[in-house]
Amino acid sequence: MSTTTGPDYERLFRRGVPAAAPRFTGFPKYNFIGGHNDPTMLPVEALADCAAAALRREGASLSLYNLGHGPLGHRGMRDLVVDKVRRHRGIEVTRDEVLLTSGSLQGLDLVNSLLLEAGDTVLFEELSYGGAISRVRTLGVEPVPMPLDAEGIRIDTLSNALDALKAKGVTPKYIYTIPTIQNPTGSILSLERREQLLKLVRAHGVPVFEDECYADLIWTGQGIGHDVPPALYAMDPGQVIHIGSFSKTLAPALRSAYAVAPWPVLSRLVALKTDAGSASVEQMLVAEYFSRNFDNHVAALSGVLKEKLDVMVEAVEREFGSAAECFVPKGGIFLWIKLPPEVDVRKLVKPAAERGIAFNPGPEWAVVPDSASSQLRLCFALPSKEEIREGVAAFARVCFEQTGIPARSGNIRNAG
Amino acid sequence: MSTTTGPDYERLFRRGVPAAAPRFTGFPKYNFIGGHNDPTMLPVEALADCAAAALRREGASLSLYNLGHGPLGHRGMRDLVVDKVRRHRGIEVTRDEVLLTSGSLQGLDLVNSLLLEAGDTVLFEELSYGGAISRVRTLGVEPVPMPLDAEGIRIDTLSNALDALKAKGVTPKYIYTIPTIQNPTGSILSLERREQLLKLVRAHGVPVFEDECYADLIWTGQGIGHDVPPALYAMDPGQVIHIGSFSKTLAPALRSAYAVAPWPVLSRLVALKTDAGSASVEQMLVAEYFSRNFDNHVAALSGVLKEKLDVMVEAVEREFGSAAECFVPKGGIFLWIKLPPEVDVRKLVKPAAERGIAFNPGPEWAVVPDSASSQLRLCFALPSKEEIREGVAAFARVCFEQTGIPARSGNIRNAG
Repeated sequence: MSTTTGPDYERLFRRGVPAAAPRFTGFPKYNFIGGHNDPTMLPVEALADCAAAALRREGASLSLYNLGHGPLGHRGMRDLVVDKVRRHRGIEVTRDEVLLTSGSLQGLDLVNSLLLEAGDTVLFEELSYGGAISRVRTLGVEPVPMPLDAEGIRIDTLSNALDALKAKGVTPKYIYTIPTIQNPTGSILSLERREQLLKLVRAHGVPVFEDECYADLIWTGQGIGHDVPPALYAMDPGQVIHIGSFSKTLAPALRSAYAVAPWPVLSRLVALKTDAGSASVEQMLVAEYFSRNFDNHVAALSGVLKEKLDVMVEAVEREFGSAAECFVPKGGIFLWIKLPPEVDVRKLVKPAAERGIAFNPGPEWAVVPDSASSQLRLCFALPSKEEIREGVAAFARVCFEQTGIPARSGNIRNAG
Repeated sequence: MSTTTGPDYERLFRRGVPAAAPRFTGFPKYNFIGGHNDPTMLPVEALADCAAAALRREGASLSLYNLGHGPLGHRGMRDLVVDKVRRHRGIEVTRDEVLLTSGSLQGLDLVNSLLLEAGDTVLFEELSYGGAISRVRTLGVEPVPMPLDAEGIRIDTLSNALDALKAKGVTPKYIYTIPTIQNPTGSILSLERREQLLKLVRAHGVPVFEDECYADLIWTGQGIGHDVPPALYAMDPGQVIHIGSFSKTLAPALRSAYAVAPWPVLSRLVALKTDAGSASVEQMLVAEYFSRNFDNHVAALSGVLKEKLDVMVEAVEREFGSAAECFVPKGGIFLWIKLPPEVDVRKLVKPAAERGIAFNPGPEWAVVPDSASSQLRLCFALPSKEEIREGVAAFARVCFEQTGIPARSGNIRNAG
């Protein structure tokens, strides 16, 4: 057998192909990034039993694409979604308006593929999910940032922006919003603002793309009636495309998420989903376990997450003192932090990595990167409380060494 | 809550968006399409035990994206792939040259995304997998058909085509080939032709995109040494991107496939795989079951498939007589059939569907659709032997009613 160096691949790659991925070398010791979950909260025994039970009952149907349930996916998991979004988010749909996806990232890809082409306009919250921002940019679409305050998206500036675009003859393809546990600021949009937002987009004929990936993890309890308004989809289904996930409530390595939309939209998303179906065993498993255990599991998980958040806020306050402003979230798995404007967090990434610390620099979670150069996101679900305390302290030391800030940690004056 | 009809979505969809998917209404009675498998061969009990064992051992790692194994996917399943392709296909790679994908369709998408842009040239076997043909067309790439004969791709015409393109200054981005159980003709490319093909593409600097989705299902036994040459990847790794799957050997509802490529290519595919990982539970399950049972399971499955093929060939000969020419495959799950040129199989799709029969019309499996207007593909893994006999007879009746062919079925002259 003769082998060669092969063709000149670099010359054959299409224009604009992303840089090569680095080899994976494991996670850092203090891993404050990504949607990882608390490993101690994984119901391992129950999942093992549920997988075995579901496979014994339904396993033979794996011989059929989509188990023979059609391209929307496993009927039992769609029924679970219907029940969950009805009880917790006020959404009334049938299983035929639910499409199971391979993670909510596939939901983002499908909606983008349905609506966007290069040069289009979309509106984003000024701070938003980095993976959503980068996806539209890859398609040649530049998101327009909408200001946020502590309550979520501001209606006055949104109204002005829509008017200004209308004057230019531009209809945005959608407004992407994370109204319930905003990523990264952790806010929950009030009922009043939800009504105002929907009124505005109706007047302008702009779809709302509602991402509720964290909406099940709320400190005050799940769903409506615990100071949490219904989903935007519940308030005006015709105007909204809704996505959600079980990655955060159960496990991110399960690629089990969903999109909810009226059939004229959903039927187009189905046509664009050319993957021959998402992972059926995982759909069986999620349906089997969560059909009986969702409320209990999520309540217990939220309790643990809230404790970890408290440990993290305490650690940030102890280590950074008045240098850090915490946006304490009402749920979820991350804390958004603002440091003094003279700190450029991008310059901390490498020295932090050298100490085994990973964090999300604010610019990656901002439509205008420079606007968040002193902000950062720390995820708290994965690390133990001890790792949170140690990691935040280690990060404060890195920050001090690089910037002289914080000048005090744990009531002790830092020395250079 | 006020609801409305929503925005004018039809006006907001991007140009060229595919038509809406129809509502799923179940499979036809005689389902001769798609890569479905034999439900009686699903090892339901063993899969249930394996899922439970794997989850008990590794389940807590589901709290980490990709189980903490990195973006290539579950280490155990990559080890399984390494062992399988070494023993059966002669491929020598490490687990760091294997990327687990969500079905081999994701492999197609990733390779296309790495190499193709509108206006590019790719070479396809003149008859090829419909899903691969449609994918490159969606990207604005028109495949150039390469003639096949009973042995697979013809080297003389391939050589002429490469020379002609070179004269025009065109380097094809790849040649897509299914050398081992060609889809749809079922041929296996000889060792001699494999060597000639590789020599040609080396001289022209053209990558080979080798799809071996059916290569494990061969009547004479698995792998090299049973009249089956090694994979093209085994013969010149630098020149080839290789994809394979467990959809056909275990179950299509498991989205468990893989791509094998040298790191300079694989690292780019990893960068393009922005789905936060494929389904980890299914990777665990495939690794757990097939690490011990691959050879036995595939031998038993191949035996059953061969029996079903024999039943189908017998039924086609009985019902169509000399009107049908069967391309009896050397493995796999489908039979390619040629009817007389006056039959346009496209006109049979609707009347067949009305009798509960689904088949793949040849034009959907041909780069030049009209060239295969009298050809069709029948899959035989899913239906029972009885359904194969009944379905083929029912299909012959439809064909006779529509075209007057076959004039004889089962030694009885058909009457109009």
